[in-house]
Amino acid sequence: MPLRVLGIDPGFDRCGLGVVDLQGATPTWVWHGCVQTSAKDDFSTRLQQIRDGVTMAIRVHRPAAVAVESLFFQKNVTTALQVGMARGVIFLAIADAKLPVVEITPNQVKQGISGYGGADKKQMQQMVQRLLKLSAPPTPDDAADALAIAMVGGLLARHPRR
Amino acid sequence: MPLRVLGIDPGFDRCGLGVVDLQGATPTWVWHGCVQTSAKDDFSTRLQQIRDGVTMAIRVHRPAAVAVESLFFQKNVTTALQVGMARGVIFLAIADAKLPVVEITPNQVKQGISGYGGADKKQMQQMVQRLLKLSAPPTPDDAADALAIAMVGGLLARHPRR
Repeated sequence: MPLRVLGIDPGFDRCGLGVVDLQGATPTWVWHGCVQTSAKDDFSTRLQQIRDGVTMAIRVHRPAAVAVESLFFQKNVTTALQVGMARGVIFLAIADAKLPVVEITPNQVKQGISGYGGADKKQMQQMVQRLLKLSAPPTPDDAADALAIAMVGGLLARHPRR
Repeated sequence: MPLRVLGIDPGFDRCGLGVVDLQGATPTWVWHGCVQTSAKDDFSTRLQQIRDGVTMAIRVHRPAAVAVESLFFQKNVTTALQVGMARGVIFLAIADAKLPVVEITPNQVKQGISGYGGADKKQMQQMVQRLLKLSAPPTPDDAADALAIAMVGGLLARHPRR
């Protein structure tokens, strides 16, 4: 039975979501999307939108595990505080759904997908397209990242290294 | 009719909560407490505990408004990310309860309570004790801060300055 994984590229403005099935190491595309929030809305509303987006993706696609990209190196403290708020409600939504989480670094995602850590956004989208046999690169790049996070995170969840 | 305000001193390890009634500018103590989370628990659990603490305080005491201390100057990016996660679930809980929020800075709180911005933790606890006619300084200091945030935030909510 395949392992269904939801990948999340967490962000306050845009939060990428991607779902894949893993049969062994072979991934199959299930769904991808992106919660986009508007700076015109107050940030309580935006946090609700992020939480609702994650919760709906879990309810609709019923993943067995969730992989979230970790972001330790923020550009600045204000950005870290904002991304932290988004991450807080994302982890809360996952915990409320009683799902296990694996956190992976951007480098783990890039290395897992492209074999080296230096892939740019466009190369990542093309690799994700090829691996999931899609007719076009998934957009926006946040959603492509989320699919990559789901694929790599799912493999790490299945074959944990210590 | 008094304005009931919940004040929150947001934090990941300890989140202070305090409720006061404001009749004009005269505050009356209603309740204070503190959500303490343990580093032994995973942080999803800790985020749920913070959210549940805020939600329960709102359900039990039914404030008309919430005041949250803003923290723009974090010691470092890792701290900012953690405090951001706590703030995210706090604002989510407030938004889910459909309550208005006022954000106030630490300096606004200190100036509002003590007349000058340089009060230390102990002086703040004593001022809060005196203003609310309590038999002892409220503990822990996070809860005392939350009461101060509720008092000052409530006055700002009632007499907004532009």
